[in-house]
Amino acid sequence: MSKTTAAPATIAFAGLGAMGLGMAESCLRAGHRVLGTDLNRTALDRLIAAGGRELTPDSAGEAGIFVSVVLNAAQTQEVLYGESGFARHLPPGAVIVSSATIAPEQARDNAARAADMNLLYLDAPISGGAARAATGELSIMASGAQEAFDAAAPALAAMARSVHDLGRDAGAGSAMKAVNQLLAGVHIAAMGEALALGISQGLDPERILQVISASAGTSWMFENRAPRVVEGDYEARSAIDIWPKDLGIVTDIAQGAALSTPVAEAALTRFREASRQGLGALDDAAITRLYAAEAGLSLPGKR
Amino acid sequence: MSKTTAAPATIAFAGLGAMGLGMAESCLRAGHRVLGTDLNRTALDRLIAAGGRELTPDSAGEAGIFVSVVLNAAQTQEVLYGESGFARHLPPGAVIVSSATIAPEQARDNAARAADMNLLYLDAPISGGAARAATGELSIMASGAQEAFDAAAPALAAMARSVHDLGRDAGAGSAMKAVNQLLAGVHIAAMGEALALGISQGLDPERILQVISASAGTSWMFENRAPRVVEGDYEARSAIDIWPKDLGIVTDIAQGAALSTPVAEAALTRFREASRQGLGALDDAAITRLYAAEAGLSLPGKR
Repeated sequence: MSKTTAAPATIAFAGLGAMGLGMAESCLRAGHRVLGTDLNRTALDRLIAAGGRELTPDSAGEAGIFVSVVLNAAQTQEVLYGESGFARHLPPGAVIVSSATIAPEQARDNAARAADMNLLYLDAPISGGAARAATGELSIMASGAQEAFDAAAPALAAMARSVHDLGRDAGAGSAMKAVNQLLAGVHIAAMGEALALGISQGLDPERILQVISASAGTSWMFENRAPRVVEGDYEARSAIDIWPKDLGIVTDIAQGAALSTPVAEAALTRFREASRQGLGALDDAAITRLYAAEAGLSLPGKR
Repeated sequence: MSKTTAAPATIAFAGLGAMGLGMAESCLRAGHRVLGTDLNRTALDRLIAAGGRELTPDSAGEAGIFVSVVLNAAQTQEVLYGESGFARHLPPGAVIVSSATIAPEQARDNAARAADMNLLYLDAPISGGAARAATGELSIMASGAQEAFDAAAPALAAMARSVHDLGRDAGAGSAMKAVNQLLAGVHIAAMGEALALGISQGLDPERILQVISASAGTSWMFENRAPRVVEGDYEARSAIDIWPKDLGIVTDIAQGAALSTPVAEAALTRFREASRQGLGALDDAAITRLYAAEAGLSLPGKR
């Protein structure tokens, strides 16, 4: 999918992983100049091969848009405001688009620091997975000043199919992402639990997939992940190790609000256990393997 | 919706509640003769007003199809094989269609007893809610002998939009229903947890509904139940009290298979607590009220 804009912008990316590289390439396809940096040199080489350049303290001065799409809050903090952080090298009025899943409070802190440095900040977590990042069809849950939305518009248009505007205050985007991750993480764990239950009763996994997908028990995650169990394919598109982090943020936020989240906690405990057992780098559909192993059940092998 | 068949059958219903009455009326509309019984005389009067007759030990002798759609396994047992049970009054070769949510083991027991009495048995739990029962558009997860399917066909055609044939053995239908209920119950509890989390962070419930329905965190239950929270409408279409029963069956089955189901157990514990606090007769979307009350959050009032 190719998107074009009238005025090419210079867009910097910190983080060229499964999501970041696809987002950067979507910006290149839309005709923008793209800078990038990643701890993994191979990822940077791929960006350069696609027509991008390396993001350095010097070249950061050209970037009107800075997209941070690193792993977590600590990395976001580091890449923006740490000793080798880029915020101080950005031109005045540039916009930081922060896309890692972080707590709303951290998004508000980051936005306040950006304002102190005469920078704009968009709290802009992403949803949709690596495939949609690559095609520029992400869903973005964004909040921030109108000026931040306006300044980020060329990048948002290139990267996203839908941008949900959640208001003028940083934090709302991250809050909505937490709501989404609570549901998504619980639904994946429940999928594993339900498939294992059905298999323990002699049901065929493929038949479970067919019937449940057409029933009230279905979810976006069930329909997306259960086919991987049926195929026996656990190559990570979204790894188990995402969930201790993201559901940890969910339960932290909830605790701060005196809200009990026992269902999310049960799912979190399952993902932590799967990670502890060495399944962390597998696709999150492999949570089903944790259940199956405990009950001595056989899952379909790779076809 | 009206469905017609070539040969009118006589179909008996034990249980004329929210589901059973709608199913019975769907059979009447399809041109069949319908008999019914219920502890609640008002329900029976409504069936009679719609053109049905009372099911008695005498009239049971006319019924080639006997649909049991009572509350649980104990009532199913009672209405079929108890002191005033109807099985012994059915004509030889009649088919019992058992639609309550029960354990697979109980379905197998019921089927064996039916066979001993020269009756057919279809393990046929239903999904779709009262609205679809009324319009003859249920989804039925069915298993049993081919003869049982054939004998039940006129009733199935009148009551269901889709009949999932899960094989020749009683128990598979109930197993698939348990898989569905695990997911559905967990998804409802997760919806309440997620809405409360979002509201605790200042998000508008209606905006949460919009954004999540278009995101990876969505589920059939989220899209069906969250609007009730947004509307502040907790009049029961499916009551909280269903879930301690159905998720209890789920965890019982799992325990019998040495399968841990911590996510389902967390949801079960929430529904039990909601029931204990007097919310049991409300719509299951009211699980959100349990979370909100604990964290001191305001939910939308009735519009």
